[in-house]
Amino acid sequence: MRLDHSTLHGSLQDPVLGSIGFLNVVMSRYPDAVSFAPGAPHPVFFEELDTNRYTGRFLRYLVEEEGHKPEKARRMLYEYGPSRGLITRLVADALRRDQGIAADENAVVVTVGAQEAMFLVLRALFRSPEDVLAVANPSYVGITGAARLLDIDLVAVDETPHGIDLDALEAECQAARRAGRRVRACYVAPDFSNPGGSRMTLDIRRRLLRLAELEDFLVVEDNAYGFTAAADAARPSLKALDRDRRVVYIGTFAKVCFPGARVGYVVADQVVGSPGAGDRPFAEELAAVKNMVTVNTSPLCQAVIGGMLLEHACSLADLSRRKADLYQRNLACLADALDRRLGRELPGGIAWNRPEGGFFIRVTLPVPVDDALLETSAAKYGVLWTPMSHFYLGNAGDFQLRLSCSYLDPEQIETGVRRLAAFLRHETGGWNGSAAG
Amino acid sequence: MRLDHSTLHGSLQDPVLGSIGFLNVVMSRYPDAVSFAPGAPHPVFFEELDTNRYTGRFLRYLVEEEGHKPEKARRMLYEYGPSRGLITRLVADALRRDQGIAADENAVVVTVGAQEAMFLVLRALFRSPEDVLAVANPSYVGITGAARLLDIDLVAVDETPHGIDLDALEAECQAARRAGRRVRACYVAPDFSNPGGSRMTLDIRRRLLRLAELEDFLVVEDNAYGFTAAADAARPSLKALDRDRRVVYIGTFAKVCFPGARVGYVVADQVVGSPGAGDRPFAEELAAVKNMVTVNTSPLCQAVIGGMLLEHACSLADLSRRKADLYQRNLACLADALDRRLGRELPGGIAWNRPEGGFFIRVTLPVPVDDALLETSAAKYGVLWTPMSHFYLGNAGDFQLRLSCSYLDPEQIETGVRRLAAFLRHETGGWNGSAAG
Repeated sequence: MRLDHSTLHGSLQDPVLGSIGFLNVVMSRYPDAVSFAPGAPHPVFFEELDTNRYTGRFLRYLVEEEGHKPEKARRMLYEYGPSRGLITRLVADALRRDQGIAADENAVVVTVGAQEAMFLVLRALFRSPEDVLAVANPSYVGITGAARLLDIDLVAVDETPHGIDLDALEAECQAARRAGRRVRACYVAPDFSNPGGSRMTLDIRRRLLRLAELEDFLVVEDNAYGFTAAADAARPSLKALDRDRRVVYIGTFAKVCFPGARVGYVVADQVVGSPGAGDRPFAEELAAVKNMVTVNTSPLCQAVIGGMLLEHACSLADLSRRKADLYQRNLACLADALDRRLGRELPGGIAWNRPEGGFFIRVTLPVPVDDALLETSAAKYGVLWTPMSHFYLGNAGDFQLRLSCSYLDPEQIETGVRRLAAFLRHETGGWNGSAAG
Repeated sequence: MRLDHSTLHGSLQDPVLGSIGFLNVVMSRYPDAVSFAPGAPHPVFFEELDTNRYTGRFLRYLVEEEGHKPEKARRMLYEYGPSRGLITRLVADALRRDQGIAADENAVVVTVGAQEAMFLVLRALFRSPEDVLAVANPSYVGITGAARLLDIDLVAVDETPHGIDLDALEAECQAARRAGRRVRACYVAPDFSNPGGSRMTLDIRRRLLRLAELEDFLVVEDNAYGFTAAADAARPSLKALDRDRRVVYIGTFAKVCFPGARVGYVVADQVVGSPGAGDRPFAEELAAVKNMVTVNTSPLCQAVIGGMLLEHACSLADLSRRKADLYQRNLACLADALDRRLGRELPGGIAWNRPEGGFFIRVTLPVPVDDALLETSAAKYGVLWTPMSHFYLGNAGDFQLRLSCSYLDPEQIETGVRRLAAFLRHETGGWNGSAAG
């Protein structure tokens, strides 16, 4: 049987769904290229992973602190389990300790990565075609992709270096209302957004929360990269500042532990009420949706993550300190290499940002950055990156590319930037400088 | 912030989404009750699980048979990985060996349990509100729940002891067409459906495939319980009989390995074509959807399942033989105990079926079977079961309950049926017999 592509769900015609597959294909075809493409954690941290030890640690916790019999504790790793997860208490403890987020464990749902958390939140929150989701532009493909799967309409709001443009967001809320619609939620990554690298000031965080109250929308906060801040430069998350339970907070262990666990979480402490039934946290609704998506998150994987948390005294900050240092170093290496190789005087039409954290630097070129240009860069120059158009709604990113530094070592970053300079010099026509060696 | 329940997605107002949570709550409140409720695997099989050994076996396979360097193989368990999964070849081999399913590994997607597979298939296949999903009635809540999440309309087709009623299905296809709609797919579990316990004859399997071709719908085959057939009584799956690539085949390792791995799979070898792009298997579209739901299935969990498959020479039949024997024994125990305790002469208004496999027996009562009656059964008689109304669209199951035998030992089954008999005698008003001791 043949299925005509045009008869499949509309999301499958959207480039955003194809983008991850496309990038994987390009990377697999050029294994010797230096790849600034993947936003994946550095492999050095996998060398010390001992999943057995972590699982053992978590089993001890189940017995000694949760009061389960050893045989029962062991079985809990193999059986189904509660939809909200086995490690909700550990996650709530860590968020309280490190981030000042006073969430009850009953407000936590453990998910298959942050991706499932985004998906569940969107599914539960969006009821009618009149509800729209505001996203910073550019935005992580995971949120726009999930919205597409659910036929949720998006409004794109420009991102400044200090996060989403609040005036533009307010204008979109008002425009939606005039059109008989409403902005139901706004997705932001206040700390080192992927791919923009923006970071909200404290003042902007507070103003966003006020606007959310005024315009009655929820804030979906994605905090995948907050841990990469320099040790003395942490800022409170939106959830920590949230007095009105306006913020649904999404986190992941993919970066601070490892991606293969596929463990993330969402804090959803909004109170859901209905006539007849009692009040309950929004997390319970997310768990009901989760029952029909993945049932529950692998308890085996939760045990590994739980054990890692326990080994670090339930502190995400402790767990991620060495990682944050490495990513800070890599980001500085990348920015410095760009400065040296491309010159401090910006060559004609070429520019880049210098974020304070996260994995990514954005480079603007004088020519359109499309998949064909990526092929050229890979095949002729041995360097890979990601076209920013994958992350933009509309065409504002058509002249930009994203460089990720997380997966590489300093020498590879140096080599990659040298190749990138050669590529830019010969292929973009925008730069005749001689700064590159 | 308060969220009014009526402003959340419509699926959250559907009882099917609340049913799993409700059952979990009841079970947790009556820990000493004999529970015929959970369709979970028997815990005895967890005693011999050695996840380390399986992981080690899979690592050897990655090195010796897939040609990866040991360090790289180890890293593959911790990193992200291909959306379609790491064990697609092993799964395809097993299906070829055991079931005569000639699927290429490129047509396999490894999923977070069978639940995610159902969800991905529905999302990819259903484009417009005119497309409807036919389901056998009663049906597994996972498929009706997933459809509700995606606002997919359902048509319920009665199930006979030999599977879905084909005449009724044909009539529904025609009725849909007259209404300007179409049956896009039909979900069935040909081998020991949950909860109905029906099993399709070979003739009905062939007729269903012919009907699918005639009416141009896809068949979504869920084969969670096929392995429980008696050793000499296997029947070919629909997928093994499928000459026209009409069947999307969904399987799970929850029962033959263990649920906590959260590993299932889908075989989707339909050819998807579009102008300009080349042909590709439908599995690739499912993987694109998966990128926006869970990104990928935990490679750590896939390694454990892969190792278990390798230890059993990539044979699901070998892997599940002892399990099938235990479930056959338990099902016979349960049916025999019902015969003995309730009498072979059916007491007034009470009846039950006697499936040849699977985990479940259905009992019909002379009184409505609702959640309140379950509370009575649990609190006063110490026996739990599942109201069949959770599995029915409409009210055809309002007088039925489901008994699961999978999780219990013969003595527990005997005790449970004794309690059930007392419950039935005193609470249903439909039986004055004396067969129960």
